[in-house]
Amino acid sequence: MSRLVYGVQPVREVLRAHGAAARGVWLLDSDSPKLFGLERLAKGMGVPVERAPRGELDRRTKGGMHQGAVTLAPELVVLDEAGLLERLSDQPDPVVLVLDGVMDPQNFGAAVRSAVALGAPYVVWPEHGSAPLTPATFRASAGAIEHATLVRARSLPPLLEELKTMGFHVVLLEASSEDALEKLDLMGPVAMIIGAEDRGAKPAVRKAASSRARLPMSGAIDSLNASVATALALYEISRQRRSSKTQ
Amino acid sequence: MSRLVYGVQPVREVLRAHGAAARGVWLLDSDSPKLFGLERLAKGMGVPVERAPRGELDRRTKGGMHQGAVTLAPELVVLDEAGLLERLSDQPDPVVLVLDGVMDPQNFGAAVRSAVALGAPYVVWPEHGSAPLTPATFRASAGAIEHATLVRARSLPPLLEELKTMGFHVVLLEASSEDALEKLDLMGPVAMIIGAEDRGAKPAVRKAASSRARLPMSGAIDSLNASVATALALYEISRQRRSSKTQ
Repeated sequence: MSRLVYGVQPVREVLRAHGAAARGVWLLDSDSPKLFGLERLAKGMGVPVERAPRGELDRRTKGGMHQGAVTLAPELVVLDEAGLLERLSDQPDPVVLVLDGVMDPQNFGAAVRSAVALGAPYVVWPEHGSAPLTPATFRASAGAIEHATLVRARSLPPLLEELKTMGFHVVLLEASSEDALEKLDLMGPVAMIIGAEDRGAKPAVRKAASSRARLPMSGAIDSLNASVATALALYEISRQRRSSKTQ
Repeated sequence: MSRLVYGVQPVREVLRAHGAAARGVWLLDSDSPKLFGLERLAKGMGVPVERAPRGELDRRTKGGMHQGAVTLAPELVVLDEAGLLERLSDQPDPVVLVLDGVMDPQNFGAAVRSAVALGAPYVVWPEHGSAPLTPATFRASAGAIEHATLVRARSLPPLLEELKTMGFHVVLLEASSEDALEKLDLMGPVAMIIGAEDRGAKPAVRKAASSRARLPMSGAIDSLNASVATALALYEISRQRRSSKTQ
């Protein structure tokens, strides 16, 4: 099986992450420098490249926003709980992002992009009620999803309990909390839970968290986009860690 | 003149920000609690409410994603340079967000949402080469744009020079910079410039900045969405200010 990915950045990240495992690249027959860049990258890895007219790319992507670049990528590896725990076992102070109920592919993809860029590439979501892994999600992540460690959990609460016994600080971001996230100690292993933008995290997930905290806001609006809240929380974690190193 | 705004959150924020100045609210004829909430809010302010079938809302919004809620809002007030300087004159240590070349309505609206929520409601953009103020932008801001102080500048460089003479620290966020944003002193008046996601800020704008800094990243991906970068920069400013108060 292979997986349809399109868009300039998503195709570039498929090549960077999976190299020769990509099953071919189709590029719009044009003289765009970006597409020539992709062509060089693909050929350097031994991935066959074909130039094609717009109609063929539109057909292959069923009218998706392909920006002149399409590839057949290997299937994403999606781990289960046991797979995650194994991966984490030899990591020093990892940061795990848990998305509980982020349904919108745009927000889900954007959250994965921030997670990878901010050094928290373990992304966990529950089997039910999450955004699907579609070309729209790959595109919203600007291809970052190719570099993430993806985990689809059968159920989040037992996983969070397990993480706590392993020494993880399990933090739920919650706008109604009294504590500011920056007051928490986020130095050791951390699992950061982001709930749905409207309903928040599920009650059993909320109960499993060892701390709850909010992002301080000070304007006429007191809610942030879920992917922005994710980025701010992961920034705060990485900032604390940098700050402790320079002291 | 009035302005078409639709979507549950955007309509709610029009009512919260402009009250009786809204020229009417049209709601889908359904028993959605969210729409009843809007109806109560509008009637409480003396804004006429009509229930309407889906077809009429589709027609009024030309097929936009109205979520059952449409309003005719007063025109947004958009200031020029002089208007901004006047507004800033009596503000203690204001934070001004400058978006130089953020063309995508989704990113522009999302940046405005974060700016308002994080206490930096002055949003400036150049007359040429910015996202238009359309219903898509209002929606992407989740209505936060109704609470922002909007400034369309004829030219950014002279405005930035003026801000510097007024004591503003004019900071350009730039991924290639060597300095981490968190190392800068962001305590006094600050103008934070965010450039286009692909090309960055224009050379004359870059030159006008008194500091350049980056958001530290640590993963396989070294770029962030422009609206996410905006939110992180504004978070860092507000964090420094809170941190100094508690010391």
